[in-house]
Amino acid sequence: MAAPVGGALAEMAEFTCSLAGAAAAVTRSYFRKPIDVIQKLDNSPVTIADRECEARIREMITERYPGHGILGEEHGFDGKELSDIWVIDPIDGTKSFISGLPLYGTLLAFTRDNDVRIGAISMPELGEFWIGVAGEGCYFNGTPSRTSDCRDLGDAILMTTAIEYFSSENRDKFAELREKTRIRRYGGDCYIYAMVASGWADLAVETGLKSYDFMALVPVIEEAGGVITDWSGNRPDMNSDGTIVAAATKELHQQALEILGR
Amino acid sequence: MAAPVGGALAEMAEFTCSLAGAAAAVTRSYFRKPIDVIQKLDNSPVTIADRECEARIREMITERYPGHGILGEEHGFDGKELSDIWVIDPIDGTKSFISGLPLYGTLLAFTRDNDVRIGAISMPELGEFWIGVAGEGCYFNGTPSRTSDCRDLGDAILMTTAIEYFSSENRDKFAELREKTRIRRYGGDCYIYAMVASGWADLAVETGLKSYDFMALVPVIEEAGGVITDWSGNRPDMNSDGTIVAAATKELHQQALEILGR
Repeated sequence: MAAPVGGALAEMAEFTCSLAGAAAAVTRSYFRKPIDVIQKLDNSPVTIADRECEARIREMITERYPGHGILGEEHGFDGKELSDIWVIDPIDGTKSFISGLPLYGTLLAFTRDNDVRIGAISMPELGEFWIGVAGEGCYFNGTPSRTSDCRDLGDAILMTTAIEYFSSENRDKFAELREKTRIRRYGGDCYIYAMVASGWADLAVETGLKSYDFMALVPVIEEAGGVITDWSGNRPDMNSDGTIVAAATKELHQQALEILGR
Repeated sequence: MAAPVGGALAEMAEFTCSLAGAAAAVTRSYFRKPIDVIQKLDNSPVTIADRECEARIREMITERYPGHGILGEEHGFDGKELSDIWVIDPIDGTKSFISGLPLYGTLLAFTRDNDVRIGAISMPELGEFWIGVAGEGCYFNGTPSRTSDCRDLGDAILMTTAIEYFSSENRDKFAELREKTRIRRYGGDCYIYAMVASGWADLAVETGLKSYDFMALVPVIEEAGGVITDWSGNRPDMNSDGTIVAAATKELHQQALEILGR
């Protein structure tokens, strides 16, 4: 994993790569082995792999940047009042992780004053890693990553994790959008955004995401040349409502938004 | 790829591994590169990678076993009247292949008198390979592969490729089944059966499959200790209706069938 970037964020980008490496070592040691699954209050599952992985990431951040805050899925929000905040999801796609599906990821984001500057999607089992750094580009395993030039829904490959995650109103909007696209694929969690950032898929649409699910995606998509907003067209920040639409081009994004944003 | 089996089918099992290796060389050379997509009459997509891969497999079979018939997704049915038939799907999950999602597979089956004896699921991008040989076991990358001991829907991880593939009647049955399971995941095509054969997932349910989609799955699931039938409870053969339910145990299969088989 590497982030061949310069600029003011270079050191933090390199550190983000180290975090991903350390996280992968933890999650891979538990993958496809018998593991207890705890059902959380919000009904989502968690395992010792999620918790141990996040603890390791927090430890590394606290050691390197003691003045930074940390929001993680499993261990809460430390230093909420600080300017510099790391936002992490140790295992995005815990259900995939539990099912032995190698499409779970680790999400890492660095934000300054609620403006996300670095985002990384790490796919430990696939050996694939994307990092987007504000003003410096998006990189897939060290080489520049670009979205496709798809400008029309009729040509688009659309991704979402699962239709059952949509509320009934949003499900209707999604169904209308889906009918206008060329190809649909399901599953994937954070991987669907990496696919858009690499130009393999063109459009990724979800709802119900938490900030640790979507903050890391923003620099990845934007720096790859795409557009990512909530369903009202606003750039995601820590207070967003968790609806997400990521598109390869602004034209495609606009067409999707016309349906989703009503 | 290896099939550490003895018995009368050993030579053909080894040959099946060679086929998978040759197929992977073809599909991997096209993956994530610009490629024309042709829409077939049944509305499913196909690429030169599908066609070239199947042509290569057919060439190898014809050279090695000139007296055998071949049914493939892309190039039709040769030697339908013969006793020994190979059934192949060069790219199962063409939509995943087109979308850069590394979950497409190659399916290979050998049948004698409409009784499937060898089945293989090859995942070229993941470097994962399953082979089931009648009476000889199921192997994942050369080591024995076993289904889980999940006996109850309430504990089960359920997989399907996409709910939109179900007819409305079947969708209702699937929805009823889904509500009773512990975890659901989507996407995957043939990979969902490999996940059941390895004990990672417990139940895989689909409809609308063609014989080249499901014949290879049968020995993989059965030899791993699971049960695979159509939704009426019959073992799949070349004339099955394309509904499939694969379960880790006969108890789990029975529970699923009570809902799906109505």
